[in-house]
This record gives sequence, C-alpha cells and structure tokens, in this order.
Amino acid sequence: MPKVRPLADKVLIRPKKEEEKTAGGIVLPDSAKEKPQEGTVVAVGPGRLLDNGNRAEMGVKEGDVVIYSKYGGTEISIDGEDYLLMDEGSILAVKE
Amino acid sequence: MPKVRPLADKVLIRPKKEEEKTAGGIVLPDSAKEKPQEGTVVAVGPGRLLDNGNRAEMGVKEGDVVIYSKYGGTEISIDGEDYLLMDEGSILAVKE
Amino acid sequence: MPKVRPLADKVLIRPKKEEEKTAGGIVLPDSAKEKPQEGTVVAVGPGRLLDNGNRAEMGVKEGDVVIYSKYGGTEISIDGEDYLLMDEGSILAVKE
Amino acid sequence: MPKVRPLADKVLIRPKKEEEKTAGGIVLPDSAKEKPQEGTVVAVGPGRLLDNGNRAEMGVKEGDVVIYSKYGGTEISIDGEDYLLMDEGSILAVKE
Amino acid sequence: MPKVRPLADKVLIRPKKEEEKTAGGIVLPDSAKEKPQEGTVVAVGPGRLLDNGNRAEMGVKEGDVVIYSKYGGTEISIDGEDYLLMDEGSILAVKE
Amino acid sequence: MPKVRPLADKVLIRPKKEEEKTAGGIVLPDSAKEKPQEGTVVAVGPGRLLDNGNRAEMGVKEGDVVIYSKYGGTEISIDGEDYLLMDEGSILAVKE
Amino acid sequence: MPKVRPLADKVLIRPKKEEEKTAGGIVLPDSAKEKPQEGTVVAVGPGRLLDNGNRAEMGVKEGDVVIYSKYGGTEISIDGEDYLLMDEGSILAVKE
Repeated sequence: MPKVRPLADKVLIRPKKEEEKTAGGIVLPDSAKEKPQEGTVVAVGPGRLLDNGNRAEMGVKEGDVVIYSKYGGTEISIDGEDYLLMDEGSILAVKE
Repeated sequence: MPKVRPLADKVLIRPKKEEEKTAGGIVLPDSAKEKPQEGTVVAVGPGRLLDNGNRAEMGVKEGDVVIYSKYGGTEISIDGEDYLLMDEGSILAVKE
Repeated sequence: MPKVRPLADKVLIRPKKEEEKTAGGIVLPDSAKEKPQEGTVVAVGPGRLLDNGNRAEMGVKEGDVVIYSKYGGTEISIDGEDYLLMDEGSILAVKE
Repeated sequence: MPKVRPLADKVLIRPKKEEEKTAGGIVLPDSAKEKPQEGTVVAVGPGRLLDNGNRAEMGVKEGDVVIYSKYGGTEISIDGEDYLLMDEGSILAVKE
Repeated sequence: MPKVRPLADKVLIRPKKEEEKTAGGIVLPDSAKEKPQEGTVVAVGPGRLLDNGNRAEMGVKEGDVVIYSKYGGTEISIDGEDYLLMDEGSILAVKE
Repeated sequence: MPKVRPLADKVLIRPKKEEEKTAGGIVLPDSAKEKPQEGTVVAVGPGRLLDNGNRAEMGVKEGDVVIYSKYGGTEISIDGEDYLLMDEGSILAVKE
Repeated sequence: MPKVRPLADKVLIRPKKEEEKTAGGIVLPDSAKEKPQEGTVVAVGPGRLLDNGNRAEMGVKEGDVVIYSKYGGTEISIDGEDYLLMDEGSILAVKE
C-alpha cells in the first residue's frame, strides 16, 4: 500500500493495466488505446470541508473499482508504480 | 443489468438504438443522424451532496425513458453494450 | 398533449408558427425572419431543487404564452411536431 | 399598456425616443447617436427567487425613468412599438 | 445636485477635472494623461440586496473623494456635466 | 502617513525600494528586476462584508511587511510617493 | 526556519532538491526533469475565513512532506533558499 494520504476530496487510484482489462468485462471504446479509465481506489481523503465546518462524506472507499473521467487526475509514481491523484468529482461510477 | 453504481448525481443510460427509434414517436431532428439523444435509465446515483449533509433527491429512476442533451455524458462499454454516464443535469425530460 | 415530463426547471414549449404570428400583435423585429421567439408552454418541470431540499416555484404554467431568449432551448420533435425544451431562466416574459 | 408580464427580475422598458431626448437634460455622450440608454419602466417582474423561498424586492417600479447599460436587454416589439426586456441588474439608476 | 438615484450598490461620481488634479496631492501616474481616476461621490444606491433580505451597508457616502479603478463605470452626462455610474466594488479607497 | 482609507478588503502598500531590498534577506528571483513584490502595509480596509452583515477580519495590519502576488494591485501616487492598492487576497504572507 | 507567516489558506513549502529525490521512493514521471513537485511544509496560514466567521482547519502542518500540483504556487527566495507559497488547494496529498 502506498504511503500517501490524499487531502480533502482527493482520491488515489491505481489504474488498471491493459492486460487486466481484456479479461474484465468493461472497456472504454473511444479511448481504450490511449489510456485506461478504470482503476482501483487505494486511498481516499477525509472529504471536502463544508461551510459548516464538517466534511462531506466520500462516495468511494479503499478497494473500490472505479470508472473515471479521462480528463481527471494528476499522474504520480510511487516506488516505481504509476498512480493517479484526482478529485472525487472526476470519478463517475463504482463497478460492483 | 450492468453492475455499475453511479456516484453523486450521475446516471447510467442505455441509449436507444436507431431501429427502435423509427418505431417510437420521438425523434430529434437536428442530430438524429449523428447519435441518439433518447435512452433508458439503468442506474442512478444517490444524489448530489447538499451543504447541509443531505443528498438531493434524484429526478429520474431506473426504467425511465429520458431525453438528454447531446453534449452530456461519457461513453462507456459494459459487457459489449454501449452506455452513457452523465450528470442528471444533462437530462432534459422524461417520456411518459 | 405530448407525453413528456420536463425535469427540474425545464419547460416544454410549442413555438408559435410563422402564420400565427402575423395575426398576433407581438413580433420580434431582429430575428423574426429567422425563428420564432414566442410560444406556448405545454409542460413544466417541478422546479429547481433548493439547497434546503425544497423546490423553487415555477414562474410559468401550462398554457402560458411566453417570450423567450433566442439562445435558449433544445429542439426536439414529438409525433412530428417541433418543440423546445429550455430552462425557465431563458423565458423572459408572459403575454397576457 | 403592453400586456406582457416579465418573469423573475426582468423589467420591460420603453426606450426614450431620440426627439424626446434632446428636450430632456440627460444625454449619454458616447453612444447617444447609436441607441438610447434611457427609458420608462412599463412592467416589472415579481423579483428574483431567493434560496429561502422569498423573492428579492425589485428596485424599480412602473413609471420610473431609468438609465440602463447599453449591453443589457432583448429588443421586442409589441403592437408596433419597440420595447426592451432586461434584467434589473442592467439598470444603473433612476432619474428623479 | 443631479437628480439621479443609483440602484443597488451603484455610485454616481463626478470625476475630478484635470486642472483640479494638478492642485491636489494625489495623481495616478500611469493613466493620468488618459482619464481621471479620482472624483467626488454625488449619490449612492441603497446597497446590494443580501440573501437574507437586508441590504449591505454602503462603504462610501455623498461628498467622499474617492479613488476608483480605471476600468469601472459607465459615463453619463447630466445637464451638460459628465458623471460616472459604477459599482461600489470599483472604488478602491476614500481620500481623507 | 497617506490620508487614504481603503474600502472593504483593500490594502494600501508602500512597495520596498530596490536599494532596501538588497539589504533585506528576501528577494524574489524571477521578477526582482521588474518590480518589487515586497512592501509595507500603510492602511487597511474594514474587511469584506459577509452575508450575515458582519465584516471579515483583516489578516494584515498597519506596519506589516508583506509579500504579494506580482499580478495584484493598482498603482497610485500620493504626494509624489508610489503606492499599491490591492485586495487582501493578493497578499501571500507576512514577514516576521 | 524562514520568518514568513502565510495568510489565510496559504502554505509555505521548501521544494525537495533533485538529488534528494533520487534517494526517495516517489518521483513524478512527466515533469521530473522540469521542476520538483514534492516538498516539505515549513509554514501554514491560519485557514480560509468561512462565512460564519470561523476559519477552515488546515489539512497540512509544519513538517509534512507533500505532493503538489505543478501549476500551484509562487516562487520566493528567503535568505538565498527557494520556497513556494501556494494555496492549500494546490496540495494533492501528504506522504507518510
């Protein structure tokens, strides 16, 4: 597990590798050859701070397999592995 | 039923196929030859999180046949079928 | 009556036809030759959801003859008739 | 009086005609030759809906002679007369 | 005094004339040759309407000599005199 | 002390002169040759008006030496001295 | 420790030097050759002022090693060392 704690409503995602994708049932037709838009949540922030001082509950949790917008996220590399750090709002759905 | 759970106010839609459309009474003149703007809701998110901590009630439900804006949504493919994941705000009306 | 239920603050409008317009007293000089900006409300949404969970009351109702901004709305066709689906905010006034 | 009821914070204005303007004391130097920016309020909307469900009080009333921004408003014609429909926010001041 | 009542948070300003400026201690170096950015408040609006229904208190009053942003305001002419109508937010400071 | 009272959250700053800067420990590498980004607060506004009618407390006070964004502020000259009038939000930090 | 007190939700960061980075496990592939996106928090502001008059709690503290967006921050130099002053919102995560 990477030792990175996302802030606010940020989510750390390990993108699905190309070979895994062929096995799974979900592919993203338009951009499948460009870069994966499916991945696994490995860490979530504490939630966006609301104006009343509370934090908004996060809609995803560690381990969720998610589909995300191809424009979301910043690529980072941790111990040689590639990850994405993105706002929760860039995540579209959870695969169940 | 696709095993995909939309987040927040996202809605998963199965676009109407071209042949189905000719039979139905509703067509969209300008863009009818480009891509369908009518479809069936197959899954809805829990609603946008309000600042008071509650979630906004969704205006559409599973099974609704909807008309949506042609600029809304991200195309995804699940088990070989094409779907659209879009914000509820991109849905204009429900056909009854 | 078209069987379409607008969402949120959307309004379904049947644009006035050109021949009807010559008879009526209201014409829109700049764009009269391009497309009508007057029409009849045929269905209204339940209102925009407010942050307190209520819905904003709609300012127009079925049967209202309205003047609308020429940049508002999406054209749809229902049973061979053309309609416009637009935000209530694109409606400028009601003719009485 | 035109039979048009503005919505929300919209205001219906009858622009001052050029000949009237020469007689009055207020002229607008830069754009005086282009189009009038002074007129008389002939109808006002009920006010913008606030988030608490009330409506914001309108700052102008029928009969007010107003100075308005030259970028505000949509031109409409009612019974052969030209009028402007604009947001109250495009009205700068009331002449007393 | 011009008979013009500004709306909301609008302020009516009589710009300082060039000759007055040479006598005063404040000049605006970059744009001094283009147009004055100092003037006297001759009328103020009732204040911007807040969401709770009250009006925000105005920070300037009649008679204040103010420094304003060179991009603020609309020029109007009243009885042959030039004035500026601008949002209070375009006023930077009051000279004391 | 200049006789200028900033409005709302505006701050009046006397920029540090080039010769002073060489002596001090803080320089701004990228733009040091263009214009100073360090200065002394000489007057502060009463604070931005909040929606509840109170004013937001200012984070800087007279005499503070501050570092500010190079895109903030309007240059004015008072009694032959150059000053900057800027939003508090353009001030990044206070030197202690 | 630099004697600089950030305002509001600003954070002062000492960017990790290139040689340090090779030793650590986290590198940022796309822009690693351009400029570091990892650093140590050396000072934090008191938090953004909320509309209720309180301040939002900061999500980072002195000593945190953080990953930040490459578009965030203003470079400043203190006593010959380079630092970045950025909004907390430009910080993506904390390395643990």
